[in-house]
Amino acid sequence: MDSCEHSLDNIIKNNLNPEQLKEFNRIYYGRENHSELKLKESTRKISNEKNFQVAAYSFSAANEEVRNPRVVKLGLVQHSVVLPTDRPVDEQRNAIFEKVSHIIEAAAAEDVNILCLQETWSMPFFLCTKEREKWSGFAESTVNGPSVTFLSQLAKKHDMVIISPILEDDNGVWWNSAVVIDANGTVLGKHKKNHLPSIGGFKETDYYSPGDGGHPVFDTRYGKVAVNICYGRHHALNWMMFGLNGAEVVFNPAATIAEFGESFWGIEARNAAIANNYFTCGINRVGTEVFGEKKITRSYYGSSYVTAPNGIRTPSLSRVKDGLLIAEVDLNLCRQIKDHWGFQMTARLDIYADELREQVATNYVNN
Amino acid sequence: MDSCEHSLDNIIKNNLNPEQLKEFNRIYYGRENHSELKLKESTRKISNEKNFQVAAYSFSAANEEVRNPRVVKLGLVQHSVVLPTDRPVDEQRNAIFEKVSHIIEAAAAEDVNILCLQETWSMPFFLCTKEREKWSGFAESTVNGPSVTFLSQLAKKHDMVIISPILEDDNGVWWNSAVVIDANGTVLGKHKKNHLPSIGGFKETDYYSPGDGGHPVFDTRYGKVAVNICYGRHHALNWMMFGLNGAEVVFNPAATIAEFGESFWGIEARNAAIANNYFTCGINRVGTEVFGEKKITRSYYGSSYVTAPNGIRTPSLSRVKDGLLIAEVDLNLCRQIKDHWGFQMTARLDIYADELREQVATNYVNN
Repeated sequence: MDSCEHSLDNIIKNNLNPEQLKEFNRIYYGRENHSELKLKESTRKISNEKNFQVAAYSFSAANEEVRNPRVVKLGLVQHSVVLPTDRPVDEQRNAIFEKVSHIIEAAAAEDVNILCLQETWSMPFFLCTKEREKWSGFAESTVNGPSVTFLSQLAKKHDMVIISPILEDDNGVWWNSAVVIDANGTVLGKHKKNHLPSIGGFKETDYYSPGDGGHPVFDTRYGKVAVNICYGRHHALNWMMFGLNGAEVVFNPAATIAEFGESFWGIEARNAAIANNYFTCGINRVGTEVFGEKKITRSYYGSSYVTAPNGIRTPSLSRVKDGLLIAEVDLNLCRQIKDHWGFQMTARLDIYADELREQVATNYVNN
Repeated sequence: MDSCEHSLDNIIKNNLNPEQLKEFNRIYYGRENHSELKLKESTRKISNEKNFQVAAYSFSAANEEVRNPRVVKLGLVQHSVVLPTDRPVDEQRNAIFEKVSHIIEAAAAEDVNILCLQETWSMPFFLCTKEREKWSGFAESTVNGPSVTFLSQLAKKHDMVIISPILEDDNGVWWNSAVVIDANGTVLGKHKKNHLPSIGGFKETDYYSPGDGGHPVFDTRYGKVAVNICYGRHHALNWMMFGLNGAEVVFNPAATIAEFGESFWGIEARNAAIANNYFTCGINRVGTEVFGEKKITRSYYGSSYVTAPNGIRTPSLSRVKDGLLIAEVDLNLCRQIKDHWGFQMTARLDIYADELREQVATNYVNN
């Protein structure tokens, strides 16, 4: 990892003695030891050559009498764009494809089963420009656009579920969507971002509407997955509905900058894993993107991480470098934790359904 | 603070250089500097004499054109019991009263306006014994029981709102309740714990039922407050309803042990502050309590802390020592953050009211 990178994890690792580190890890990460997995030599080699970080951790579950273990490897990819944003769309996109293909090859070599890319991974996050027409070449079909074509081949080749969050062009109407490609390369379906930010000058509502597809969970070859896209992580009910609909892993692909909430990047997805007892995977892009003559600049802080249904989390990937985070998990842990803690049993959803309906009917008069 | 105390905050403070500490604080706490407030000499003196920690921090808000600042001081008290649990009830309770009276005097001297005690503060947390009759002397009336009588006098004397979470005896029926005493010493009302744990051998349902009073918010002299009692912090909707009902500060008095989730003690109340844009105050008891011939033993880890509506948090109080945590806050920050982030505007509660109702009607068939 870069020595210039002041990540919380590095600051800790480099300054505490072993006993202090254990105690810090126990309180902060939820376990004294991260259960790091050894990587293959070939993975080390390609990650050095192509300059991306790879880290892998394991989460186990208890053996059960009736169910066999359901061990799967999750893969999270964070990356920067490659070319300046004033280059032709095709060149920019192909350069990203080329970069990401190496990371996916490494994931395949490490036997990753379910992989998720970052929000609108195939383009620079131009939504901060407030411009539309000049960037429209980046919007893609979820049926036969360049991203889905590219990733379907890789999914089939590697027997890998791949989740592809893109800017969707649906016959001229845009959506912020995540396409779920099953391990045979076919598209299982898509989820459209439910909650759109409108913060200061930054308004995604200039580009597309909030999702109209509810909270789908996709029954992939390796497990039940859902996608909570970026700003949706601020909404506890968005997380909850994916859980009630049966998700075992919820990915949170994002494009988020330090000025907005780096200190709670580690809180929200982790809280969702604890509250809903599923695995959550926060994925954020890295690098600095510069747009137009005004040199509008946005820097992303990466820090992708995984949390287990019991609240134990991995260290983060780098704040500045491309990376692949692998988590070997036993999906049986979800139900085991539900049975132990009883959050679902004690949820009293009936009273909340009534109270929410009342709030809506009275237009939040108490506020 | 005790040198033997391996709190996360102490480990960090004692091992990082100033530059690293700033960066750690920025990412972890949300600001580089904690804005610590200077304590009065008399406060230092009494806290040394009586062996409790005092820490005080400040959270500011922007000036507004229409509203004046609404600066109030919140006080959180964590403490251990005093006498062995086999001593007479009155002796045990009076010893706690005596200890807590010194902490409240210190809070008054520091101009605390709203103070909250820990869950069932006037007794050892005997609920782990599964016994009932032999401890029933600790259950109290919220109208004229010893705790409310004792605290009403202090509230009036110091013009202080005091929240008193106790084991309520309502004509022979028990509840886990928090009594809200306004600054004139009168009882504004009470809240009954909505979600009860039933984890392994520990079942609060052996003692009392889940609350039947919904999500009240109390309009005290200094601001609108609510109480989310202990296990209720695991339920995002519990936090949310207090917010929708107008709370500006939500206290989370608890009695929780390291074996159950010390690593997410810092996550849940903080996430609630972020999601709902109010101040949250997590309060947990300290010390070890031993019960009966079987020597049933429970150790509490303190670590009380405050989070602001923008996610910035204070360091924790000690894991092992009695303490008073003071947060000087401007309540105007709640609406300022709501206006900036837009979580309420983008909450789409209508779709969730429908989806929850449907989940309830179908008995969670997807799960």
